[in-house]
Parts: sequence; C-alpha cells; structure tokens
Amino acid sequence: MNVSSSYIKKCILELEELTEKDRPYTRLVFSKEFKEARNWLANQFKNLDLDIKIDNAGNLIGIYKSFNKSSKKVLIGSHLDTVPFGGRFDGIAGVVSSLAIVKNFREKNIELPFDIELYDYLGEELNDWGMSCIGTRGMAGFLDEEFLNRKDSLGRVLKDEINKIGGKYQSLGKKFDLFEDVIACFELHIEQGIRLQNGKVEIGIVKSMPNISRHKISVFGQASHSGTTLMHDRKDASLPAADLVIFINKLAKEYSKKDNRHFVATVGKLDISPNSATIIPSLAELLIDLRVVNKGSRDDFLKNLKNEVKRLSNFYDQKIIFKDIVFSPYVEMSSYVNELLESSAKKQNFSFMFMDSGAGHDTAHLSKVSPASMIFIPCKDGLSHCPEEHAEIQDIKKGSEVIQQSILSIKSKMI
Amino acid sequence: MNVSSSYIKKCILELEELTEKDRPYTRLVFSKEFKEARNWLANQFKNLDLDIKIDNAGNLIGIYKSFNKSSKKVLIGSHLDTVPFGGRFDGIAGVVSSLAIVKNFREKNIELPFDIELYDYLGEELNDWGMSCIGTRGMAGFLDEEFLNRKDSLGRVLKDEINKIGGKYQSLGKKFDLFEDVIACFELHIEQGIRLQNGKVEIGIVKSMPNISRHKISVFGQASHSGTTLMHDRKDASLPAADLVIFINKLAKEYSKKDNRHFVATVGKLDISPNSATIIPSLAELLIDLRVVNKGSRDDFLKNLKNEVKRLSNFYDQKIIFKDIVFSPYVEMSSYVNELLESSAKKQNFSFMFMDSGAGHDTAHLSKVSPASMIFIPCKDGLSHCPEEHAEIQDIKKGSEVIQQSILSIKSKMI
Repeated sequence: MNVSSSYIKKCILELEELTEKDRPYTRLVFSKEFKEARNWLANQFKNLDLDIKIDNAGNLIGIYKSFNKSSKKVLIGSHLDTVPFGGRFDGIAGVVSSLAIVKNFREKNIELPFDIELYDYLGEELNDWGMSCIGTRGMAGFLDEEFLNRKDSLGRVLKDEINKIGGKYQSLGKKFDLFEDVIACFELHIEQGIRLQNGKVEIGIVKSMPNISRHKISVFGQASHSGTTLMHDRKDASLPAADLVIFINKLAKEYSKKDNRHFVATVGKLDISPNSATIIPSLAELLIDLRVVNKGSRDDFLKNLKNEVKRLSNFYDQKIIFKDIVFSPYVEMSSYVNELLESSAKKQNFSFMFMDSGAGHDTAHLSKVSPASMIFIPCKDGLSHCPEEHAEIQDIKKGSEVIQQSILSIKSKMI
Repeated sequence: MNVSSSYIKKCILELEELTEKDRPYTRLVFSKEFKEARNWLANQFKNLDLDIKIDNAGNLIGIYKSFNKSSKKVLIGSHLDTVPFGGRFDGIAGVVSSLAIVKNFREKNIELPFDIELYDYLGEELNDWGMSCIGTRGMAGFLDEEFLNRKDSLGRVLKDEINKIGGKYQSLGKKFDLFEDVIACFELHIEQGIRLQNGKVEIGIVKSMPNISRHKISVFGQASHSGTTLMHDRKDASLPAADLVIFINKLAKEYSKKDNRHFVATVGKLDISPNSATIIPSLAELLIDLRVVNKGSRDDFLKNLKNEVKRLSNFYDQKIIFKDIVFSPYVEMSSYVNELLESSAKKQNFSFMFMDSGAGHDTAHLSKVSPASMIFIPCKDGLSHCPEEHAEIQDIKKGSEVIQQSILSIKSKMI
C-alpha cells in the first residue's frame, strides 16, 4: 500500500517557504514562522478530516479516530521547529511522513481499532531556554518548575510561551495518566550521519540514544585597552578558552577512536565579552555538547576535562568555572516496536540495519513512558543542522511505508 | 593660575550618568546617550558664553573668541564617546579638562590674540563601521568615499549619521583650508597604561603613536549536526581559530620582549557561526588589533602570521582568508608643541617623561596637518576600556594646568 511521494514533496516544498527570509531555513520555536507552520499543519489536519487539539504541553495533534471509539492509540509524528540556518528535513520529514500515512488511510477508508494521534511535538531543537524537547518532556511528566520558569535572553518565561501557543502548563499531569492507552510511538527521522549512505542501506532501526549532556565553561580575564596594556600585564580570557577548544576536540578524538560506540564532543557555542577589537576579553564562555553511549568513557572524559580546567586556571592564574547544564541519560528503544519495524522492513524487501542514534529526539522522552522507537532514513553526506541538509523524497516514502505497515500489523494482531 | 578641581569633578559625575543603564559606562557614537552628552556639552558652552558650532565632519565646537577678531586659533578637546562597557575618563578627561581651562579664562577675563576652539571630536572609538576618529579624519581630509559609504550592522550609512548629528559630509573640504590658521592642537588623555603610575610621574608628554592596524581572519568549516557527525568527519571552523588565538598571543609576546619599543597584538573580537551548541561551527572570524612602533618588527610579525595561516589551512584542509582592514601609520608628535608642554611642566614643577603612546588618538590625525601633541595623565593600574577605569581629579587638574600654561606661553610670545 504505497504512500504518495507527490504529496510528501508538495508538503516539503510548502514548509520550506515558512522560514526567516534572511537566514534559510530557520523556524525557531514560538517564532512567527513557527506559528505559520503550525497553521499550515492545522490546515492539513482539516483537509484530512482529523480532530484537532493542542495538549497541555503545547503539542499540536491531529487525530484519526478509531472506528470503535477505542481509547487505545498509536502516536506518530515529529517536529516542525528548526535550529538557526537549519534544514528542510530534520523533524519535518517525520511530520510529513505521518501526514502521508494518515492521508493514505483516509483515502483508502482504513478502519482501525485505535486512534492515530499525529503530533507536532513542541520545540524539539535546543532553544534559548537551554533545553530541547519541550513538548515530549511535558507529555512525559519531565517539565518541572525549574524548566517552566526559565527565561530566555529576551526575558520570555517558558511557561508563558507554552500557554500562548495554546498549552496549559498549570495542568501538566503525571505521565501515567497520559500513556496508559498508548500502544506504540513511531518517529521517522533523517539519520544526520553517513552510515546509511555509506552502507547503501534504506532503513535504520534505532537501538538507543546516547547519554547527552551540555556543560558550560566560563573563563574570567581582566578587560583593558588592547593598545596600551603590555603583553605581560594581561589577563586575556580568550587564551584559556582557545586552549580548551583544542583540548576538547583532541580528547574526544582519542575516545571516539578507542570506543566502539558513539562518542562525540563539540564546542558549538563560544562567546567572548565584550567582544571588541580594542578591549582585552574579560570573559569567554564555552558550551560543550557531549554525546556518549558508554558511561565509563563519559565519566573518564569529564574527569580529564575538569583536570585540564584546573591546570589551565593555575597556568594562566585566571578563574575558570565548570558547570553542568543539562543531562539526558542513555535510553534503549522498545524491542516490541523494533520487532514490528523489522518485520515491516523485511515484508517490503527494504534493506535495514540496527544503529545507535547520535542525536537526542522526542522519542527518547516518549520511550521512558511507553513502547517507542524510531527509524532513520539516509540524508545526503550526513549533513544536518545546515541549509545543505537534504533527503530524497523516495527515501521518506520508503520509511513512511515501514511505519504504515507496522501500524497495520498492530491492527491485524488486535482483530 | 589654578583650574577648578571641583568643576572637573562635577563634570565627570554628570557625564557618567549619561550611559546605557544596563552596561555602564557605554556611550556609543550616535546613540541616544551620546546625543544626551552632546546636549550637556552644548549647555556648558552656553554657560561659558562660547560660540557654538558643528563643523562639516560633525564635531561639536565651543569657541572662546579672540579679543582682536584674529583668524588664528588653538584647538583643545577630546571625545565624549566610549567603547561598550568603557570608562568614565577615556576622552572625557580631555573634554572636561578643556572646559575647566576655558572656564578659568572666562572668569579671569583672559584676553587672547587667537580663538580657542574646544572640540568634542566625533566618534573617536572604534565603531561598528570598522573605523575610529570619524571627526578628526573628516577635519583632516581623510574621510574618503569608501569610509563615508560604509554601513554598520544595522544598515546605517556613516555619511547619513554624520549629517543627522549636524554635520555636512557633502562639504568635507581638503585639510589645507581648515588648518592654515591653527597654531597648535593640545589633547589631554589618561595614559591607559601603568608607566606613569609605576614611575610616580605626573605628566607624560607623547612622542609618537604606533603603526596601528586591524586584520580579519575568516576560517571556514562545514556546519553539521554536533550529535551525529563523527569526530573524524568534521570540518570545525573553531579549531584553526583557536590555534590562531594562541599563536598570535605567543608571537606577540616574543616580539614585545625583544623589541625595545611598543609592541602589542590582541584578538579582542572572535565570532563563531552559527554559534549553536548543536551545530558544528561553519565560520570563525577573528579581528586582530596590532600596535607596533618598529616597522621591521611589524612586517616580520605579519609575515610569520600569514605563514601560520597557510600552515593551518593545509593542516586542517580548511579555507582561511587573511584580510587587512585598516592601517594608521606611525606618527611623531610636534616638537614645537612638545617644547611648549615641557616648559609648562617645568615651570609648574610637575614631574614629566616623554613616552610612546600605545593607543591611537584624534591627535594622530591632527598631527598630520598641524602642530599637535598630547599629554598623558596617570590612570589607576593602567585599566582602561572597562568600567574600573579611574583617574584622580587632581591629576586631571595638573594636566589641565600644563595645557593652560602652554596656551598662555603662545600668547606671551605673540604679543
């Protein structure tokens, strides 16, 4: 039962227009462009005759109702938001794939003994509040007071933004209420790596998501005039910071070589203050993104890094502060859902492999409270979180058909 | 003939209030706070019964008229603008000192055979248009079309801003028209270094200003997802940039040790794009500020730096572009003006020393077209371009009296 590749293509092309015009493709959560994309999605829901709701966590949901008023449900979907200069497929492919599946069901009058809930999970990407996966954290009971009260750099409080988009943070319940009727959660996503492309494999079935954490290092110097302050009289915050950028990369390369599971560390954000040519930097702040499957390797790496921070602080005689910002522990995907996905791939003669995810996804949070897993589809040269991000429509179609078949398998086992 | 230290203090205290409230002390050229400071200065001019004008370059001038309608003039003054988080004395001390001198002349009915023109030179600090000394460049005939048409990051064209502040860029003449009647230019400034403080010397008489240049290095990488892109598949722009930060500092330290004149190099501005924790940096831009008296050392340093840029580009297999942004050549101060200053210091029993300036100043541009020099006064621990910047009112008073005496010496030689 083919899903429509022309519909998938049409959706991708329409969504890529909804971007900040001067930095394609950017659709930050809660932005004007994000709201436009949600309106677009609500319109698709209407055209497919779905019930539409926004839950307490601010997720937008289109519901394909069961034929028998069952309370059971299957969750599919992904996210519409992007990083700055992000791509046209990360998250979007999963939303569009879900639309294509439901469109197929509607057109072919498929009757199901459970609802399908099609989600735009709110704000999956790391945002200015220093967190990701707002919507699934909220659904699964992990949005605590500390998160809800965080302010972004514009002073916006997260809980207020959730309510403005249609959520109701005051009523965010415990996970148990929401998930007892969930049979399975499926998410299609681009791989954001090159293993499928290099191995010429059509479908990746996700085994796990790594320990993901962010750490902030603040290096303190003394601001002074860059023209008049002699070289040996300086406390320049950029020097220990530059040493740390080099050290982190070198150490991560060593661990990634000797470890046989996923290990990456990145300094993607580096801010110098006051960042003026004529002033010696008084502050340098690094944000480190660390993704590791093996706990032992992770602990070792952080210990080494903290030792280097101490060494540099002594060497330069400058204060350096190391701070843990956020941590999502390693999670394994549901073996029940993965068996469904494997059978579906086999049945349709798609090549597939099991793999670790390098990235975190909404499904990481869902998998803590329900049977959940993901499939990856190839993306060109592994590029993601950049304008060049690309996936083939045919690959999104194949992935959609694997999830579609898995849903039909659930049905046939129930009836 | 004492100048009033209480008036100096009052002026400093009033001006320090005119700052961006959330980042003291910040008064960027053309900003709301800058316009407030100019209104404040125009009011002082009014109280001192000075003629007020704004010249074509946008400088604000108060004129203490000669008794004999002479066309001859002496220029004094400095600048009211600051860098971000700058200080309460850099530039300001020179403007306030000039006010105190003229106030003294007015109160004591001193009659002079030349005008005194008291300047707020427009926009001395490095600004978002990538240049400094807008006003004195304009007066001296060095504001060419390229400068005037530059846009800042908000899209504001420099020449439009000059006209909005009261200037007339269309009529910016050649230097010869403006300067034929100028007898001398004096500027008082804080040292922004620690030589006067360490030597317990009251007055620095400036011999020279160094070759000052800025250079931009752009390092190109490939943006991609920081969670999924394996360590050995990356092109991370922050790595060669970090190597360059370390290299530039190390090389500058070597030259400053072996050179017996001023040598400093600084990376004060460093921008990573897209600067997000989850994206591998695709671009890193460094702005290097270089200040060197000896031409040979300067040429050597830049040659070494360019070689390192090539080496790193090969090593990382990443494109790196080196670009010269701005250059102000070495200038010597007027020996005629320095003899006047030396005699005045001696006459008043102030200790003094001759010294190289590490910073550029408006007087660098004035000295190319007229007899001009500066005096430095001590500032606490050499700190400048930072909120901690501090100078003693008594030291500003002493410096003012040296310039006042120099003006009176010119008078006595003329009559």
